[in-house]
Amino acid sequence: MENYANAKLLEEKVFKDPVHRYVHVRDQVIWDLIGTKEFQRLRRIRQLGTTYLVFHGAEHSRFNHSLGVYEIVRRITDDIFRGRPEWDEGERLLILCAALLHDLGHGPFSHAFENVFQTDHEYFTRQILLGETEVNGVLKRVSEQFPEMVAQVIEKKYPNELVVSLISSQIDADRMDYLQRDAYYTGVSYGHFDMERILRVMRPRNGQVLIKSSGMHAVEDYIMSRYQMYLQVYFHPVSRSAEVLLNNILKRVKQLNEENYPFIVEPVHFKAFFENNINLDDYLALDEYILLTYFQYWTKEQDSILSDLCTRFMNRKLLGYVNLNPEEEPERFRRLKELLEAAGVNTEYYFYHDCTSDLPYDFYRPGKETTRLPIFLLMPNGEIRELSQESLIVDSIAGRIKTDHKVYYPKEILQNPSVDSELKKELQKVLFS
Amino acid sequence: MENYANAKLLEEKVFKDPVHRYVHVRDQVIWDLIGTKEFQRLRRIRQLGTTYLVFHGAEHSRFNHSLGVYEIVRRITDDIFRGRPEWDEGERLLILCAALLHDLGHGPFSHAFENVFQTDHEYFTRQILLGETEVNGVLKRVSEQFPEMVAQVIEKKYPNELVVSLISSQIDADRMDYLQRDAYYTGVSYGHFDMERILRVMRPRNGQVLIKSSGMHAVEDYIMSRYQMYLQVYFHPVSRSAEVLLNNILKRVKQLNEENYPFIVEPVHFKAFFENNINLDDYLALDEYILLTYFQYWTKEQDSILSDLCTRFMNRKLLGYVNLNPEEEPERFRRLKELLEAAGVNTEYYFYHDCTSDLPYDFYRPGKETTRLPIFLLMPNGEIRELSQESLIVDSIAGRIKTDHKVYYPKEILQNPSVDSELKKELQKVLFS
Amino acid sequence: MENYANAKLLEEKVFKDPVHRYVHVRDQVIWDLIGTKEFQRLRRIRQLGTTYLVFHGAEHSRFNHSLGVYEIVRRITDDIFRGRPEWDEGERLLILCAALLHDLGHGPFSHAFENVFQTDHEYFTRQILLGETEVNGVLKRVSEQFPEMVAQVIEKKYPNELVVSLISSQIDADRMDYLQRDAYYTGVSYGHFDMERILRVMRPRNGQVLIKSSGMHAVEDYIMSRYQMYLQVYFHPVSRSAEVLLNNILKRVKQLNEENYPFIVEPVHFKAFFENNINLDDYLALDEYILLTYFQYWTKEQDSILSDLCTRFMNRKLLGYVNLNPEEEPERFRRLKELLEAAGVNTEYYFYHDCTSDLPYDFYRPGKETTRLPIFLLMPNGEIRELSQESLIVDSIAGRIKTDHKVYYPKEILQNPSVDSELKKELQKVLFS
Amino acid sequence: MENYANAKLLEEKVFKDPVHRYVHVRDQVIWDLIGTKEFQRLRRIRQLGTTYLVFHGAEHSRFNHSLGVYEIVRRITDDIFRGRPEWDEGERLLILCAALLHDLGHGPFSHAFENVFQTDHEYFTRQILLGETEVNGVLKRVSEQFPEMVAQVIEKKYPNELVVSLISSQIDADRMDYLQRDAYYTGVSYGHFDMERILRVMRPRNGQVLIKSSGMHAVEDYIMSRYQMYLQVYFHPVSRSAEVLLNNILKRVKQLNEENYPFIVEPVHFKAFFENNINLDDYLALDEYILLTYFQYWTKEQDSILSDLCTRFMNRKLLGYVNLNPEEEPERFRRLKELLEAAGVNTEYYFYHDCTSDLPYDFYRPGKETTRLPIFLLMPNGEIRELSQESLIVDSIAGRIKTDHKVYYPKEILQNPSVDSELKKELQKVLFS
Repeated sequence: MENYANAKLLEEKVFKDPVHRYVHVRDQVIWDLIGTKEFQRLRRIRQLGTTYLVFHGAEHSRFNHSLGVYEIVRRITDDIFRGRPEWDEGERLLILCAALLHDLGHGPFSHAFENVFQTDHEYFTRQILLGETEVNGVLKRVSEQFPEMVAQVIEKKYPNELVVSLISSQIDADRMDYLQRDAYYTGVSYGHFDMERILRVMRPRNGQVLIKSSGMHAVEDYIMSRYQMYLQVYFHPVSRSAEVLLNNILKRVKQLNEENYPFIVEPVHFKAFFENNINLDDYLALDEYILLTYFQYWTKEQDSILSDLCTRFMNRKLLGYVNLNPEEEPERFRRLKELLEAAGVNTEYYFYHDCTSDLPYDFYRPGKETTRLPIFLLMPNGEIRELSQESLIVDSIAGRIKTDHKVYYPKEILQNPSVDSELKKELQKVLFS
Repeated sequence: MENYANAKLLEEKVFKDPVHRYVHVRDQVIWDLIGTKEFQRLRRIRQLGTTYLVFHGAEHSRFNHSLGVYEIVRRITDDIFRGRPEWDEGERLLILCAALLHDLGHGPFSHAFENVFQTDHEYFTRQILLGETEVNGVLKRVSEQFPEMVAQVIEKKYPNELVVSLISSQIDADRMDYLQRDAYYTGVSYGHFDMERILRVMRPRNGQVLIKSSGMHAVEDYIMSRYQMYLQVYFHPVSRSAEVLLNNILKRVKQLNEENYPFIVEPVHFKAFFENNINLDDYLALDEYILLTYFQYWTKEQDSILSDLCTRFMNRKLLGYVNLNPEEEPERFRRLKELLEAAGVNTEYYFYHDCTSDLPYDFYRPGKETTRLPIFLLMPNGEIRELSQESLIVDSIAGRIKTDHKVYYPKEILQNPSVDSELKKELQKVLFS
Repeated sequence: MENYANAKLLEEKVFKDPVHRYVHVRDQVIWDLIGTKEFQRLRRIRQLGTTYLVFHGAEHSRFNHSLGVYEIVRRITDDIFRGRPEWDEGERLLILCAALLHDLGHGPFSHAFENVFQTDHEYFTRQILLGETEVNGVLKRVSEQFPEMVAQVIEKKYPNELVVSLISSQIDADRMDYLQRDAYYTGVSYGHFDMERILRVMRPRNGQVLIKSSGMHAVEDYIMSRYQMYLQVYFHPVSRSAEVLLNNILKRVKQLNEENYPFIVEPVHFKAFFENNINLDDYLALDEYILLTYFQYWTKEQDSILSDLCTRFMNRKLLGYVNLNPEEEPERFRRLKELLEAAGVNTEYYFYHDCTSDLPYDFYRPGKETTRLPIFLLMPNGEIRELSQESLIVDSIAGRIKTDHKVYYPKEILQNPSVDSELKKELQKVLFS
Repeated sequence: MENYANAKLLEEKVFKDPVHRYVHVRDQVIWDLIGTKEFQRLRRIRQLGTTYLVFHGAEHSRFNHSLGVYEIVRRITDDIFRGRPEWDEGERLLILCAALLHDLGHGPFSHAFENVFQTDHEYFTRQILLGETEVNGVLKRVSEQFPEMVAQVIEKKYPNELVVSLISSQIDADRMDYLQRDAYYTGVSYGHFDMERILRVMRPRNGQVLIKSSGMHAVEDYIMSRYQMYLQVYFHPVSRSAEVLLNNILKRVKQLNEENYPFIVEPVHFKAFFENNINLDDYLALDEYILLTYFQYWTKEQDSILSDLCTRFMNRKLLGYVNLNPEEEPERFRRLKELLEAAGVNTEYYFYHDCTSDLPYDFYRPGKETTRLPIFLLMPNGEIRELSQESLIVDSIAGRIKTDHKVYYPKEILQNPSVDSELKKELQKVLFS
C-alpha cells in the first residue's frame, strides 16, 4: 500500500521536548505508531530504571527517549542526507520506524528482570513488531514485509549497514539521545556535546556514516561525555545498590513461588514468568507501575525477607558497599561473608558482588573486537581514517577501562545493638581496612 | 530536645538537582524527614498530574519539587536573612521543615480525586504531621509542639507572617520552584526568571518579605513567567482533556460501586473512599502507581463505559474540545448535547464543560480581594510601595484575566460511519460555525 | 553575470557564533562581501555604543550582529520558505546581501555623532553600496543593477514587501538577532525567546510574512523580551549618562574648532565633519578605535571642559541623574539650573535633559501610525488576524509607553568642599524632594 | 588606616556578568580600585588578543576577566573558607585585591608586543602597584606596606602559599574564570565545567587548597575543558596566523625606525619603546585602540611591507599555513623558503615558523617539573592524594602533549599570475605532498 507509506499529515505535529526543543512528525505512519498502545506503554517504563533513587530528576520514560531517537534520525535523513548521491530516500521511512520502535520490547527494570526471569527484550521487540499488535497493524499497512524489515534493522541484520548504523554504531542516534537526555534529567554537567555540529558533518559513504574531519573535536567531546556519563551516572554505586535490591526482590518472589508460599495478594502478573511460559500479552501487561504496586503489597507479606527487601526499596533504605574484587581478595571476601552470617545476615539476599563491566559498556577500544563499527573520519583529501589515529584525546583513553568491583551488604548491621560488639569491630576491620 | 534541633550531619549531603544544581542538607532533622516513608511516597505522585500526556517531559514528581522548595528557603535563610536584625534564627528549622513538607498530603491526581471523593489534601497534610507517622516521629524529637507549629506554618496560621510568607505569598519559594521546575521538565521556554537576583534583594522587614526596588525587573519577569505558564502549560486544553477523562473514570467507578457492580478485580484501595470513611493508612496507601494499575485492570472490565474511559486514558485517546461558554451560548450548548445524545453518546461521561478559572489562579490583582499578600517594594529612600504602582508592566496585565470555557466531547463521532451523516453534518455545524 | 550569483564555495564555511551556534556561508558572493574592508570595518564599531560602560559584557561589534542577521534570513529562506509557492527563489541572494549589509553605513557611536554632526548612517549605507568600494565591486559582479536593488531593500523601497519585511518589520531578522545578541553579551536574563519556533511558523503569503497562530505564544514572548530589553538595557539611565558625555565631548570639540582653539594634536579625522564637507573616505576612516584614541589625547588638552569630559568618559566618571520633565516641572528645572550655575557648573556641558522616547522605539501600537507593518497571524481556518486581537498579553501592553525624562548633572558637586554649604543643601532639596 | 581596610559600601554594588551572573562588591577598597584609571584602561585591552579574527565573539576585554577572577575569589573566601580554622580572615582583602589586579600590567596584544620590544607585563604590574598611580593611592590608604604585599601575591612570592594558590595554581580562580569566559564569548561548547561544585569542595589545609575527593569528577571535567580550549581555541592556527602578522608589523616598525624611515604620522607612542627607555606613563598610554589606530594610519605608508602587513591585519587577509617542523624536515623547510624567495616573497616578514608549545601551557604533567602545584585530593579518610593517582582520565592524558609546528606563508602566491607556473607547481608540491 504505497500511498500509506507516503501519506503526510495535513499539518505537521510537534511535541515539545526539553532536549531537542521539538520533535516533528509529518508522516502518517509515524503518527499512527505513536498512538498505538504498545508505544504508549513505554510511558510507564523509566529510561534509567532505579537511577531516580540517586538522581531524583531521572524520572523520564522510554517514551521520551524513543521520540528523541526518532527526531535525531529524522534530522539526519531530512536535513543532512536528503539529496546526497549515496543516500536512498526509499530507506527513509524504514529507518524512522526502526528508530522510533527500537526499545519497544523493553520491560520494567529490564536488567534485573531479565537476569532473574531469563527474558530478553530483543526477543519481545520482534514479537511486538510481528505479532498481533496495534504496531504490527500499522506497519503491515505499509507493506506485508515491512514489519520484518523494521525488525531486521533493529536487530542489525538488515543488509544496508548505513541504515543500521544510524541507530547502532559507536556514534548513533540512540546514544546521542540518551547521553543528552539522561544528562538533562539527572542534571549532571557532563553529557553535553555539540550534536548540531556532529549531524552537520555526517556523510553517507561506502555504506556507512563518515564524519568529516572538521567535526572531529565535537566527536571527541561526545566520546568524553559518554565516558563521564558511564563513570558518574550509569555505574553510580548507589544506583547499583538499588539494582541489587530489585534483583533480590524478584529472586525471592520466584523462590517463594517455588516453595508454594501463600501470598496475601496473588502475584497473577508473574504467573507466566514463574512458569516460563510467557506469551506476548503477559509480557505487555507488565510495567513499572504494576511492579511497584506489587512491591507495595509485599511490604506487608509475612515472609520477612520479601517484606524487608520491598520496604527497603520503596523507602530507599539501600545496602552499603565496599570496593572488593573476590578474585583478587578471595580471603577477605570469604571472611566478610562469614562474619555477616555470624551476625545473622542472610547472605543469599543481603550480600552481593557487583561488577560494573558486566554492563554492556562498549567504550571505544581499537584493536579489541567490538560489536559496533569504529568511527571513521573523512579527511579533506578524501582519505578515510579511524578516529583514534587522528585524535590524541581519544587515543589516550581508548581501551583504558577500569572494571569496578563492589560488594553490597546491609550497613545497619554495624550499628545494630543486638550484634556482638567484638563481631562488629571485626566486621569494621574487614570492611574498611 | 534542643540537641536534636541543632544536630548537624558530619558531612553535608547534596542532591543533584537539575533546577537548583544542588540541594544541600546539613541538618539531621531534614535528613531524617527525607528518609521517612511518607516523604518517599511523594516520588510516586507526579507534580503535574496528567500534563505528561501533552508535555511528555513532565514526568517529575512532588518529591523533586518538595526538595526544591526546601532548598530555596534554605538559601534565603542561610545566605540572605542570617544576621539581619529582623530575622529570628530560631525560626529557621521550622520554616525549613514546613517548606520540605508543605505538599505532604497530596494524593494521586489530587484535583480530580478530590473533586470526586471530596477529600482534601490540606486536611491530610495535618494528619500526617500529627498522626502516627514516621514524619511525626521525627518532628516530635525536636519538641512536643513542633509538629503543630509546622502544620500552622503550612496552613498560614502561624503568628509570624514573615515565616508563612516564605512559602505562601505572591512570590514565595513554592511558586519560584514550581515555575522553574515545570518549565524545565516540560521544556517550554517560558518559566525562566532570575531567581538569584530576587533572592538577593529579599529583606525581612515589618513582619513580611520586602523586595528591594533594584530587583523590580526580575520580579516583573517572574510575574510574566507565571502568567505564561498558566496560559501555556497549566491550562493547556489537551491536558485539561486528560483531566476530564480521569475525573469521569473516578466518577464511573464510584457510580458502579453504588450499583453493586461486580468488579473482576475488587478495588480494595477505594473501599474507604466509597464509604467516605477514610483513615490515614487508606489515604497513604494510594499513589499514582496504584491508580494506573487499577486503570489497566479496568480496561478489561465488562462495563463498557469504564473500560472505554480507562483505555482512552492509558493509550491517550483523549476527548476533543471547542470553545463554548454555556452561560453565553445556552442554546448552542443545549443543541450540542442533544445532537451528541442522538448520535448515541452518553453525555454524562463524554460531555463536559470545563472552565479554567475554576483552578486556583491568583494572578496578581490589586484592588480585588486576594488570599495572598501583594508584593511590596522597598524603595531606596526607605519607602514601601506596592509593586503595580511602580511597574508599568505589572500594572498593565494585573487583573486582566480571561476565563476560558471549553466543552469536551468524543471527536471520533464525526468520523463514525454508523452515525447518520445528516446528524454528523449538523454536529459539525454546531461545533465549528 | 549569472554565474557569479550562483557560485558556491567548494566547501561550506562556518563561523562559530555564540548566539546562533554557527553562521553558514556557501555563496561565493556572501563570502566575498564579508572579506571586504568596509565590512571588516564593522568590527571596530560596537553594537551598543556606550552600553559597555554599564554592562561590561556588551563589547560586541556590529560585525557580529550583521553576520547574525544574515544567518537568520538564510535559515528562513533555505529551511522554511524554499519550495513554497509564494516564495521566489530568485530573491534569495538579494535578501541575503541586504541582511548582511543593512548596518554598513553605521559610524562610531552613531547616535551622538549624528546628533552633533548631522550625518546620517542610512545615507552612507547607500554611498558604500553604490560608491567606489570593495563592497560595490562585489555586488556589481552579480549584475549592474544589483547594488541599487540591495540599497532599495535596506531603504524599504524595494517593490516586493515580503523581501523588505524580512529585515524591517515588527518581527524581523534584525530585531530577532539584536535582542538575543544584546541579551547574551550583557548577560541579562531577558531577551530570550523561542526563535526556532517563530522561524518554523513563518509563511510567505500575500506579499508579507504571516505567523501561523500555533506559534503565537513564542511571538508574545518575543514582544515581551523586546519590551524588557528597552526598559532594562537600551534605556538604562547610566548608559544614557555615558551618551550625554559623549555628545558633549563632540559638541565641545566642534565649538573649539569654531573658536580656532589650538589643539595639541590636530583632529585631522574631524576636519571634514567640522566643515560639513564629508566624502565617503572621510566617513569610512572613522571608527571607535580612532575616536577613543582622540579622547585619550584630549584628556591632556588645555581646554578644561574638553579634558574633563574626556577624562570622565575614559575613566567612567559619569554624570548623576534625577527624574525631571522640564515641561511638567518648569520651575524645578529652572531652579536646578540656576543653583548649579551658582555653584560654578557650566550648564551648557554639564546639565542635560534626556528623554528616552527620543530614541526610535516602535514598540507595537495598533491604531497608532507606525512605520512598520503590524504582525499578522494565520489562523487554522485560513483567516488572517492582527496579533493584538488574539493575544491578551500583547493587547495589554500595546501602546502603554511611559516616556522617561531625566536630567543629568555632575553629582560630585554635592560633596565639593569649595561650594557653599547652604547652596548644596538647597541643591539637595531641589534634586531629591 | 585600619578603618579603610574594613570600610563597606552603604549598599552592595553589583555588576551584571554573563559568566558569573553577578559580580558583587561591598568593600570600599575594591570599589575604589575598579574606579581607577589604570583599572579602567583594561577595558581597552582584549582578553584574547587577535582571537576575535577567528572567533568573532571573542571581543571581551581584560576588564571583564579581572572582575571575574575577583568574584570567584570573593565566593571562595566569603562562602567557603570563612570560619574554617585554617583560613585567616585577615588575608581576605589582600587576596581580593591581588585577584582584581593580577593582570593590571598587561599591554595591548601582550604576547607579540613583549616579543618584539622585550617588555614584561609582570614588571609593569609591579610598577603600577608601587608607582605614582591611582591604584597605588588606593592601596596605600590600606597600609604603607599593602601595595608591596599585593605585588608579592601576584608574583607568587608571598609567604602564605594558600593565598597565592587561589590565583596561581593548577586550579585557580584565574583559570576557572578565563576558561569559562573565553568559552562563553567564543561560543565553543567546550570550556564548561561545574565550578559551583569545585568551589564547594575546596578546603584550606596545610597551607594549600585541597579538593574533597567527592568533587573529583568536576575537577576532571575542568582539566578536560582546559585541554580542549587549548587545542581548539588558544592554539587555533588561524588565530596564530593573525599573531604572526601582528608580530611582523611591530618588527617592521622597529626596523624602519632604526633606518630613520620618515613616517607620515610620527609613531610618538612608540618612541620610548624604540629607545628602550620606557617609563610607566609611556606604558600606560598604550592600548589596543591606539595600536589599531596606528595600524590604520600605516596602511597608507609608503613602505610597502608595513602598509601591506597592516592592510592584511585590518582587513583580515591572513597568511596560510602548513604543518612543518623545521627540525624534523630541515630540507623541506629550506626548500620552501628558497622557493618563496624565488617567487619574490620577503621571507623575513612573510615566512614564519610557529610552535604552539612556545606558549605557556602547563597542562598537568606529574613527574615533570612544573611551576605550579599539582592538584591534591582530600580523601574521606583524611588522606591526601595527588589527582592523577586517583583519576583514570587525568592519568590518561597527563603529559601527552603534542607540540604543534606550523609554517606560515602568503597563500595568495599560489594564484599569483605573475609568478612562474613551474615555480608554483613546485611550491604546491613542497607544501602539500
